[in-house]
Amino acid sequence: METVSTWKACGGTQGVYRHASSATGTDMTFAVYVPPHEKGAKLPVLWYLSGLTCTHANVMEKGEYRAACAEKGIIFVAPDTSPRGEGVPDKDQYDLGTGASFYVDATEAPWSKHYRMRTYIEEELPELLAEIFPVDMRRQSIMGHSMGGHGALTVGLRNTARYRSISAFSPIVSPLACPWGQAALSLYLGENEANWRDYDACMLIADGARHEHLRVDQGSADEFLEEQLKTGVLRDVCKELGQPLELNLHAGYDHSYYFISTFMADHVHWHADRLGA
Amino acid sequence: METVSTWKACGGTQGVYRHASSATGTDMTFAVYVPPHEKGAKLPVLWYLSGLTCTHANVMEKGEYRAACAEKGIIFVAPDTSPRGEGVPDKDQYDLGTGASFYVDATEAPWSKHYRMRTYIEEELPELLAEIFPVDMRRQSIMGHSMGGHGALTVGLRNTARYRSISAFSPIVSPLACPWGQAALSLYLGENEANWRDYDACMLIADGARHEHLRVDQGSADEFLEEQLKTGVLRDVCKELGQPLELNLHAGYDHSYYFISTFMADHVHWHADRLGA
Repeated sequence: METVSTWKACGGTQGVYRHASSATGTDMTFAVYVPPHEKGAKLPVLWYLSGLTCTHANVMEKGEYRAACAEKGIIFVAPDTSPRGEGVPDKDQYDLGTGASFYVDATEAPWSKHYRMRTYIEEELPELLAEIFPVDMRRQSIMGHSMGGHGALTVGLRNTARYRSISAFSPIVSPLACPWGQAALSLYLGENEANWRDYDACMLIADGARHEHLRVDQGSADEFLEEQLKTGVLRDVCKELGQPLELNLHAGYDHSYYFISTFMADHVHWHADRLGA
Repeated sequence: METVSTWKACGGTQGVYRHASSATGTDMTFAVYVPPHEKGAKLPVLWYLSGLTCTHANVMEKGEYRAACAEKGIIFVAPDTSPRGEGVPDKDQYDLGTGASFYVDATEAPWSKHYRMRTYIEEELPELLAEIFPVDMRRQSIMGHSMGGHGALTVGLRNTARYRSISAFSPIVSPLACPWGQAALSLYLGENEANWRDYDACMLIADGARHEHLRVDQGSADEFLEEQLKTGVLRDVCKELGQPLELNLHAGYDHSYYFISTFMADHVHWHADRLGA
């Protein structure tokens, strides 16, 4: 693993790192914030999965999470949103290809060679983190935004014993039920929607996944709410099937990082309570 | 004045605006954060001048000021760092021309036509703000970073009755004494250094300017500290001439926004105390 950059921030270290990923067959870049801590301490981890078009850098620059993570002693990890680079297939659209992995392990050519973000997020990157950073892997939580909110919900609901809590800002709650998700999952996974259910939070809940601590924050002025995000679909599924959901609607907020940064400290504190931090 | 964008943030409104500036003879873009407030209220104003290469957007995205400004009820204004656009002279260097005005009214051709940032910051933009935003212009403070720290110190020290408090992150404390400043001021103001004194915080203090509330925060790992910023020159001048200076040195911090965002809330609170906010 190569250290790309580090900066002192809020008493700890904000770093950017790069490594050769066996999951994606590419170099992958990710950001980690390590708060001030005593030597030898093992700290809880909060994962943050980013949305369409983002890299590790968007939340690192605009997310305003460091003060809260420093206060609570939480390591904050922000992976990239897809493989990138020479030989990685792409589409000339912001919502397909690089920056738009939807956190799946693709099964369709030519995507299946590199687009293995499920394996990367669930297996490879956690193992690398545990080797190199002072993490207590028994205390992990996960969150994300938009496509990354979808990522956090689905990674979390597939691995309910691993994460103490799961939250999302403005998530795509059901790729099966929205144009972004339909286009991406048919491309990466083929046309048989039965193969999509593992990548749809609502279907995972319908198929039996349950988690005690699930939270969604959604802005009412979000330009993608009606057509793409469909928060109401998740609300209804949770209500019908007895999955607890803390759903916070925020009047006037849109889809941007100005919404995320407004409520980020509150999310970090919510996870901290469940991480024992 | 044209509204370019607005976002709800921390209960208030982060906006970006554009207007035709008579001072610079160009369109100028600036950012204003208006915190939540009661109808009819007039709020104190904190000015933020940005550093080399920046626009209004850098601090807006990375500065982490909104939560503190919302808490204290302070309007935060971030102007651009120079005129821009067709017909505006430039140099193919990051530290001269666009993004590098040093906040002077240039006297030398071809710069003197558009590079009139002193007039813009001290006269034109305050008048526009007072017309359009709910500002209490009797309660203003000013801060900045690097070249914008130089801007804040010099604008503040030339207008000591206007600003309740003056602070800077990592400022260029004496353009006369550093390569960045010498190159820029000779270009904009000509070779006679006597004409530079109005644009040098240390010289303004030597020439008699005094302010009760002057603060500088500086990182010890700042890559520009020794050659360009020279905090010690300001410290010595203040000590020798009886100008109060709250100088905070921060071990391990560099010149980046990771330093600024770490201490931004503290600066906002410091100004708030002096603004009666």
